Amino acid sequence: MFYSKRDLYFQLFELADCESLCQYPYFQDHDKESFMMVLDAAEAIAEKMLLPLLTEMDRNEPQLIDGKIRIHEGMKAIIKKMGEDGWVNAAFDYEEGGQQLPTTILNAAGFIFQAANYSSSIFTYMSGGASNLIRTFGSKELIETFTPAIYSGKWQATMALTEPDAGSSLSDIITAAEPTSQEGVYKIKGQKIYISAGDHDACENVVHLMLAKIKGAPLGAKGISLFVVPQKRIEGDSLVWNDVTTAGIFHKMGYKGAPIAHLSMGASDDCYGYLVGEPHKGLSYMFQLMNEARVTVGMNATAIGTAAYYASLNYAKERPQGRKISEKNPQLPQTPIINHADVKRMLLFQKSVVEGSLSLLIYCSKLADLIHVEIGDAKEKYALLLDLLTPIAKSYPSEMCCLSTSAAVQTLGGAGYTTDFPVEQFYREARIHPIHEGTTGIHGIDLLGRKVSMQHGKAAQILFVEIEKSIEKAMSNDALKPYAEKLRSYILKVQEVTQHLLSLAQQGETEKYLADATLYLEMFGIITIAWQWLQQAETALRRMEQAHAEDKNFYQGKWMTMKYFYEYELVKIEALAMRMKSDNSVTVDMQGDWF
Amino acid sequence: MFYSKRDLYFQLFELADCESLCQYPYFQDHDKESFMMVLDAAEAIAEKMLLPLLTEMDRNEPQLIDGKIRIHEGMKAIIKKMGEDGWVNAAFDYEEGGQQLPTTILNAAGFIFQAANYSSSIFTYMSGGASNLIRTFGSKELIETFTPAIYSGKWQATMALTEPDAGSSLSDIITAAEPTSQEGVYKIKGQKIYISAGDHDACENVVHLMLAKIKGAPLGAKGISLFVVPQKRIEGDSLVWNDVTTAGIFHKMGYKGAPIAHLSMGASDDCYGYLVGEPHKGLSYMFQLMNEARVTVGMNATAIGTAAYYASLNYAKERPQGRKISEKNPQLPQTPIINHADVKRMLLFQKSVVEGSLSLLIYCSKLADLIHVEIGDAKEKYALLLDLLTPIAKSYPSEMCCLSTSAAVQTLGGAGYTTDFPVEQFYREARIHPIHEGTTGIHGIDLLGRKVSMQHGKAAQILFVEIEKSIEKAMSNDALKPYAEKLRSYILKVQEVTQHLLSLAQQGETEKYLADATLYLEMFGIITIAWQWLQQAETALRRMEQAHAEDKNFYQGKWMTMKYFYEYELVKIEALAMRMKSDNSVTVDMQGDWF
Repeated sequence: MFYSKRDLYFQLFELADCESLCQYPYFQDHDKESFMMVLDAAEAIAEKMLLPLLTEMDRNEPQLIDGKIRIHEGMKAIIKKMGEDGWVNAAFDYEEGGQQLPTTILNAAGFIFQAANYSSSIFTYMSGGASNLIRTFGSKELIETFTPAIYSGKWQATMALTEPDAGSSLSDIITAAEPTSQEGVYKIKGQKIYISAGDHDACENVVHLMLAKIKGAPLGAKGISLFVVPQKRIEGDSLVWNDVTTAGIFHKMGYKGAPIAHLSMGASDDCYGYLVGEPHKGLSYMFQLMNEARVTVGMNATAIGTAAYYASLNYAKERPQGRKISEKNPQLPQTPIINHADVKRMLLFQKSVVEGSLSLLIYCSKLADLIHVEIGDAKEKYALLLDLLTPIAKSYPSEMCCLSTSAAVQTLGGAGYTTDFPVEQFYREARIHPIHEGTTGIHGIDLLGRKVSMQHGKAAQILFVEIEKSIEKAMSNDALKPYAEKLRSYILKVQEVTQHLLSLAQQGETEKYLADATLYLEMFGIITIAWQWLQQAETALRRMEQAHAEDKNFYQGKWMTMKYFYEYELVKIEALAMRMKSDNSVTVDMQGDWF
Repeated sequence: MFYSKRDLYFQLFELADCESLCQYPYFQDHDKESFMMVLDAAEAIAEKMLLPLLTEMDRNEPQLIDGKIRIHEGMKAIIKKMGEDGWVNAAFDYEEGGQQLPTTILNAAGFIFQAANYSSSIFTYMSGGASNLIRTFGSKELIETFTPAIYSGKWQATMALTEPDAGSSLSDIITAAEPTSQEGVYKIKGQKIYISAGDHDACENVVHLMLAKIKGAPLGAKGISLFVVPQKRIEGDSLVWNDVTTAGIFHKMGYKGAPIAHLSMGASDDCYGYLVGEPHKGLSYMFQLMNEARVTVGMNATAIGTAAYYASLNYAKERPQGRKISEKNPQLPQTPIINHADVKRMLLFQKSVVEGSLSLLIYCSKLADLIHVEIGDAKEKYALLLDLLTPIAKSYPSEMCCLSTSAAVQTLGGAGYTTDFPVEQFYREARIHPIHEGTTGIHGIDLLGRKVSMQHGKAAQILFVEIEKSIEKAMSNDALKPYAEKLRSYILKVQEVTQHLLSLAQQGETEKYLADATLYLEMFGIITIAWQWLQQAETALRRMEQAHAEDKNFYQGKWMTMKYFYEYELVKIEALAMRMKSDNSVTVDMQGDWF
């Protein structure tokens, strides 16, 4: 068991009411049954094709041989199957060959793929995200030239942003684009690093959605344009090498099945790129993809954390060790470790992190769907909410699943540290997520420095109104009431901290204002997940009475996990708030020479 | 740079006043100069022999081939050198060929070895610890037969405790010892797993200090005896195979250079073991070694964390990325990331963890030396303190260096996740320490369930008196006073929580009393390290005025890091205390079926 279908259904249908999306004309051909069929199809692929390669792909990492990256040979069939079954473009319009599937359902299917074998899931995901940029901002010609082969899985697509000297500071990229006599066609020269699926032998071509600067463009972020830069370009009926060289491959701690390339463009002065949309607007286009990708990274982390949780839960149920703490008789048989309070604590921690994260991510996915189909004020409201929640949906799962996979390792003890069990792999794989798609530090600055105060704090106001609605609903249940009140009191603490930090901004103390942005993000993450848990518990308690025995156990688990989260996690805001309200600016004052 | 000699000297000579040990007759031949020579010798070996193999040993792990484990060929010279230079038995008596070196200095040298290449350091350490058991509890014959070859590095020694069905619950071991006609000689049959350095091809024999049960012995911990079980036994002038088979090797996430074996004894009914000391007292003997080993595990974690800290510090000083947060001009060159507050926060976190841990570990090592040379009340006081602090000295560094190596990875960003830099290896290696030598959960129960209340709480009383002395001393410095007061107020919180939990024990609520023992251990760790930092800052501020420029920077760093610890780490007690005083026993109430 690498994920829980019962929990995924709970999240999608009992909590988030995803069927309600089918009331919108755009999604009207779908219903709950068809959603479940999509998820069943994902599960079948995950179980039959992805999961069996989980360990193998970790132990046989891609290699750069004679200028070409060779990946696990099993990936060829997977990429082909994913293309043929329509997973690349499932969420796109019918007229484009898509299925108009809600993002919520596609992301839930992605969760299943990622939980089975994260590395194997990224090829299709990259192609979907990158081709979405072409179809949204590209010319008809670009769309017709490039998207069909990407959709079918014949070609790989990627996003190519980072350069050796420009990672977090994207505005410093120097990859150059020089106009040619042909409109929209540029000569490209530069280096890109850390390109996921940037080169491999399971597809016949790789199409990069690449950021570059047109000669003479303004400095900084305002001078960045977006190009399609294929590894091989089409000339007549044939594919011709486009002077994109794989200069290197990065070997990594985990996530080893995915090839991460260093690309060199234009070394032979024969690399052509095709402008997407207008010049100098590349970064704003790319942000569409990056915002989607950030929610997906949160989902990746959650999926890996989920697989680790079930691996450790299974072990805890089967492994006998020690006796109850009050039982000293050595003649009694040993008890399964799941009966020890400290083991239950580690399992509850994991459960609270992964199921709390999953519900936030499904909420955010549904917001993306609603933005797509709604208009006017409703659309704006959902857009503001998603904008505000994106750094949290990316970072909370990413940071916390490093800790929850660590708890999985700890649950297995010595066995968890060996390669005899998969948890050590999950621990290594989880560690990439606080880094890629913007480090946690970057997202803290995004949240505190931009999102919380945008439009005079409108997004945060909307969020707090939504949370208050959930609190009100929970207050009518006597068992839940103390927790609802607790959440309300912590919301006040969060607002106090926010006011304090924004007042520093108003005083022009920019460095002090943002010095603890990472802690602010952590605090905001905790309160957001506490909100999700209040809703999960409210739903569970409501349904528990009518439920049959197995479902009663499931709902009891939800109720207890919410209690765990409020008892052990929510209170962490105490220390965070205390620190952020302090005027001791030690991290600003510290000097490099003093280390 | 993989450690700081400046800091180590600060810790040993400015803070812990280790020279004062030389006033005792046992250590009278040593002085500060000779201590520094020992450390220089350790550094030379670390730099020339251990450090160059750090990456190689990780990438070429030991393999079991034809029943024998093959390790990195460079280890042969290292083990030989360590034996020849007297590192195995340096702390033992002159008449045994030792140097009567204080444990404090030996552990400081070990810290240098471990920071250079953890895996390579364990061979000598295991031999030292295991042979210490033979010389302390074994007969003259056992000592003469086995220790010379172990001291010289010709033979490897190990500790063999864990079995497939008995890890945390050691009392459940089933390895059997059957008396023979020869007194003190037993036939051994059983399985042992996770035996560090349990078999390898760099020594000609491996001597296991093994726990087993003599037939007819009492059940549980009271029936465990200690044996010397060599891989090859001496018959006349030759070594004969002693029916100890290497049944398997464990491959691991990190710490890969060290061979971890699965041993099978007596499959051919020809395995002999030699009783150490009296029958059924094996566990108490083994605890001598385990208590030493627990302090060493804390040091291992600290050393790995230190190496990761300096790797990330070095990167942060050299890597330009982005501009000051208040600087938007893209024409300005990028600034080294050490100038970003969030990066400084990650570095201060690491520095506070590794230097705070190191000072606690040196304090504990000095306690061990004082116990050795003191008598009467003083000896008892030091023994109680060390007994109380051992679970903390083991667990705080172990748990926190998982997080501090994670901060090192994060500081490097994408580069940190690749194998181009050593931090990902440190992240993997750090993860073993919360597991071996007793998991964190076990140490929590040891601290709260035994150490805090032993002799009516005498050890804890002694510790709080010592801390109060440091607070008093710090109160006379105006800059330090607020921090001293803060520490005092948190000591009260810790005492409140302790009283609350002990009252549960008195009410017979054993499960509830110990359910959060891991959190209690975390809280106690934080307060203990806060105490260490108060002392470090007090020393630094006192010396700062007379110091030359470079030393001023060093002392400033200490002062700022103490501030960091009090602002960001000490406050975490708020949330921990709040949780532990709550009467919501969610982890006890949770049922296995509800997960």
